Amino acid sequence: MTHMYERDLPQNAANHAPLSPLSFLQRSAEVHPNRLAIVHGALRQTWGDTYRRCRQLASALQRHGIGKNDTVAVMLPNTPPMVEAHFGVPMAGAVLNAINTRLDPETVAFMLDHGEAKAVIVDVEFMPVMKKALALRKATTPLLVIDAEDAVHGPGDALGNQSYEAFLAQGDAAFEWALPGDEWDAIALNYTSGTTGNPKGVVYSHRGATLNALSNVMEWDMPKHAVYLWTLPMFHCNGWCFPWTLAARAGVNVCLRRVEAKAIFDAMRDHGVTHYCGAPIVHGLLVNAPTDLKAGVPAGIKAMVAGAAPPASMIEGMEHLGFDLTHVYGLTEVYGPATVCVKHPEWDTLDVGERARLNARQGVRYHLERDVQVLDPETLAPVPWDGETMGEIMFRGNIAMKGYLKNPEATQAAFKGGWFHSGDLAVQYPDGYIKIKDRSKDIIISGGENISSIEVEDVLYRHPDVLAAAVVAKPDARWGETPCAFIELKANATATAEDIVAHCKKHLAGFKVPRAVVFGELPKTSTGKIQKFELRKAAGSAAAIDV
Amino acid sequence: MTHMYERDLPQNAANHAPLSPLSFLQRSAEVHPNRLAIVHGALRQTWGDTYRRCRQLASALQRHGIGKNDTVAVMLPNTPPMVEAHFGVPMAGAVLNAINTRLDPETVAFMLDHGEAKAVIVDVEFMPVMKKALALRKATTPLLVIDAEDAVHGPGDALGNQSYEAFLAQGDAAFEWALPGDEWDAIALNYTSGTTGNPKGVVYSHRGATLNALSNVMEWDMPKHAVYLWTLPMFHCNGWCFPWTLAARAGVNVCLRRVEAKAIFDAMRDHGVTHYCGAPIVHGLLVNAPTDLKAGVPAGIKAMVAGAAPPASMIEGMEHLGFDLTHVYGLTEVYGPATVCVKHPEWDTLDVGERARLNARQGVRYHLERDVQVLDPETLAPVPWDGETMGEIMFRGNIAMKGYLKNPEATQAAFKGGWFHSGDLAVQYPDGYIKIKDRSKDIIISGGENISSIEVEDVLYRHPDVLAAAVVAKPDARWGETPCAFIELKANATATAEDIVAHCKKHLAGFKVPRAVVFGELPKTSTGKIQKFELRKAAGSAAAIDV
Repeated sequence: MTHMYERDLPQNAANHAPLSPLSFLQRSAEVHPNRLAIVHGALRQTWGDTYRRCRQLASALQRHGIGKNDTVAVMLPNTPPMVEAHFGVPMAGAVLNAINTRLDPETVAFMLDHGEAKAVIVDVEFMPVMKKALALRKATTPLLVIDAEDAVHGPGDALGNQSYEAFLAQGDAAFEWALPGDEWDAIALNYTSGTTGNPKGVVYSHRGATLNALSNVMEWDMPKHAVYLWTLPMFHCNGWCFPWTLAARAGVNVCLRRVEAKAIFDAMRDHGVTHYCGAPIVHGLLVNAPTDLKAGVPAGIKAMVAGAAPPASMIEGMEHLGFDLTHVYGLTEVYGPATVCVKHPEWDTLDVGERARLNARQGVRYHLERDVQVLDPETLAPVPWDGETMGEIMFRGNIAMKGYLKNPEATQAAFKGGWFHSGDLAVQYPDGYIKIKDRSKDIIISGGENISSIEVEDVLYRHPDVLAAAVVAKPDARWGETPCAFIELKANATATAEDIVAHCKKHLAGFKVPRAVVFGELPKTSTGKIQKFELRKAAGSAAAIDV
Repeated sequence: MTHMYERDLPQNAANHAPLSPLSFLQRSAEVHPNRLAIVHGALRQTWGDTYRRCRQLASALQRHGIGKNDTVAVMLPNTPPMVEAHFGVPMAGAVLNAINTRLDPETVAFMLDHGEAKAVIVDVEFMPVMKKALALRKATTPLLVIDAEDAVHGPGDALGNQSYEAFLAQGDAAFEWALPGDEWDAIALNYTSGTTGNPKGVVYSHRGATLNALSNVMEWDMPKHAVYLWTLPMFHCNGWCFPWTLAARAGVNVCLRRVEAKAIFDAMRDHGVTHYCGAPIVHGLLVNAPTDLKAGVPAGIKAMVAGAAPPASMIEGMEHLGFDLTHVYGLTEVYGPATVCVKHPEWDTLDVGERARLNARQGVRYHLERDVQVLDPETLAPVPWDGETMGEIMFRGNIAMKGYLKNPEATQAAFKGGWFHSGDLAVQYPDGYIKIKDRSKDIIISGGENISSIEVEDVLYRHPDVLAAAVVAKPDARWGETPCAFIELKANATATAEDIVAHCKKHLAGFKVPRAVVFGELPKTSTGKIQKFELRKAAGSAAAIDV
């Protein structure tokens, strides 16, 4: 006989429901129908209207034969249709594939083919790229193309079968959508930016999306009706799940087509922005903006930074702006951020340099993630928490992808031993905080010594003339590899290669000092990450300096 | 062939973990080890220490042979061992049965037998009752009895095998506890106070406890490190899941053995309390306390009220105190609160009476509950949202019990048709807000007309001399039943039965005016609910008034 606690106490429709962020939208529409949900140009859209429009989108998709487990791709900037797609697509049972808007037609075509998209919604700005991608697409199955117009951008040529608004008009605003049959069902497909080979398709579940959306609330103490500025692209890890977080908070999505300092500061003032996220490059843009742009910006705006360890100089700059910066770290495979550098009050008494060093760490597991540890990649044994022994950052728990679409080998490799292997090398400090030392492939091995490119970059960022910096390996006949620095200087800065090297010698062991310094604009991905693979190509021909 | 989104993307140890509030404790201990977790008398205990002690408790339980699905009963006031039991017991795999400390020995013995308790932890204050209960217990299986001493209470006679501290000392502070094998596993057993027949054992799951604990955060915008005063008994729906909520927030549990106005106001001042919960009687105690006790109490304390619809007069009184009152509603079967009367800014411009009327409604579903509706109990069809048509409040989603222990008939009846049937009769307003009209059994049927006892009580509470009021049916030869009012007057109040009746006539239809008025202290349950079944007995002999 089964135990009394396992007898006659099954799950049923009354006591169990699949976790899904779609419930967040429904509740906000029910409880706060007249609250503002979306601001975009002259548009002001409530949660009640947003829910109706999402139901129309779901209904129209189903009327076009799109349903359970069908992929709906979108190529949209941070506009209202992008917010709506995060709900309308899964309300039809379908899976949202938000495509990076800065990709080339070949890669877009690969994603449409690999994800087996049945429909695609395209913003007017990206129709030329999408037109080429559609021509390159190998699949011969029908693809429903929906044109998303945008008054803020202005008119463009039609590409698809119909406009987004015309498509919505075919849907029923009272559509009886259903929660997923299982919370493990897919809600989104996000391709990694993979610097080599084809991108991998990371599949998110309704459960994971729900729990990461709630983790965002927990980490930020994000109150109801927060006003969130969309500086982070929603195609990047579904805007780290914040479209769903905002629905859970009945907050305001302040849309933004383009990341520009003036537009950002204007939006912060005009709409009373309380929160925003971005790669370091976004925050750097604000820190280094002309003083007059910054006047009158609300104090205490909360910012999250991820995508690379923020240099100390930026953390200081953000403090001067009056922004409260939280440093998070993650990857597409863990729904965006899955660690956070939780700040402690005792840090406030430290000098700004030490505070910045503590804040620059990747920190501890995100609220509803089960575990994150630095482990030996071979044995999976934890490294000692000495701030020195390197291992690989590994995650486990609900904030990790279902796996890679149609790629069981890569999925199994990523989850080997019951941990998600991040590929990032790090140490763990005595307080349990993790600090990235490098990507496995970004380590520079010089004369048998490991050089962390991040350590060298941190020093470069401390030079007052440096706006952005990246360090990669340069092949070297004698040492195997040596560090090569690529530097973007601030406007009117005058530092020379010799100045940079002299600065590095003050702060670094000799073998870590760059043997070559190249000035110019750094190549960046759409999310502001510096494209090191481009720099590695360039490093070979960089002129060496006599250090 | 299965669909691509359902192929090779299974749950595994890296991407799935059971939801459990035990994870909250672990994270707070890891990230905030030196933060204050528990205040009690002179005791100041951190989250690091609390985690170590909970691991010791779990370890000691296992060393005594107590593990998966074993029941551990506790009879404790709101003291540190009660907080620790909410973690240490399930960390051993066991199920926590927190017994109402005001029960009689017979009922306690019934619970020990029915729940098949393997161990019981008893506070020094309740040893006399427990001693009798142990003697009345029918089971002959061994029962480990642990005495919880408390310096705040002072010494008492030993009852059990050992003291709580001696027991903990046998456990390993580094005990390798495990999450439940399944998040549906039982975490707690809570007996309903059932006014007739034997109490029913409501079983909570780790999943439900986690999601309701998070819902508490969401509803209150509860920030990290909130300071929570334990005015609500933890034996009541596990303190509505707040021990787990506090762990999720790394907050402070301010313990309190007894609900007394002076102790409460002192604690609020001394510890910077930010949040507390209670039945209306608790808030009434504060509202009606002498003015000198209230001096210097922090402004903006957030309070939750549940257990009965708060009368308008109390909502006003709380506003005058500067407290921010949130009205929630629920039952043991739905983990405590599962609806909340969400306030809207547009209500602020209404007069206080209208605002109080809106706030007195039970409101809308709790954040992570799937659905709550007023349905026809026979057909399960929703009632029209007209504020008039009565139906039964029904819940569905993750914030509902697994079922009643060893009572499949009652479980099936409670979940009939895929909804949890609350037994509360209510209407739904055009804004979707629910308002309880009565318990099924509390409706008074007079001359064929239904009279809501709550409606009459609301009017009684508006009389300035009334401290507490309850209305029940009095058998009547002519009308079948008539309303009978039981009233507890404020100190020095002088209202007569005639005054009360005259007041009612001003605000109620004639047939709803009480035909009898009885003055005196009202009988209350341990959670402050007025015991109407006692009043029903008394109503029969109450003298009728010529209305």
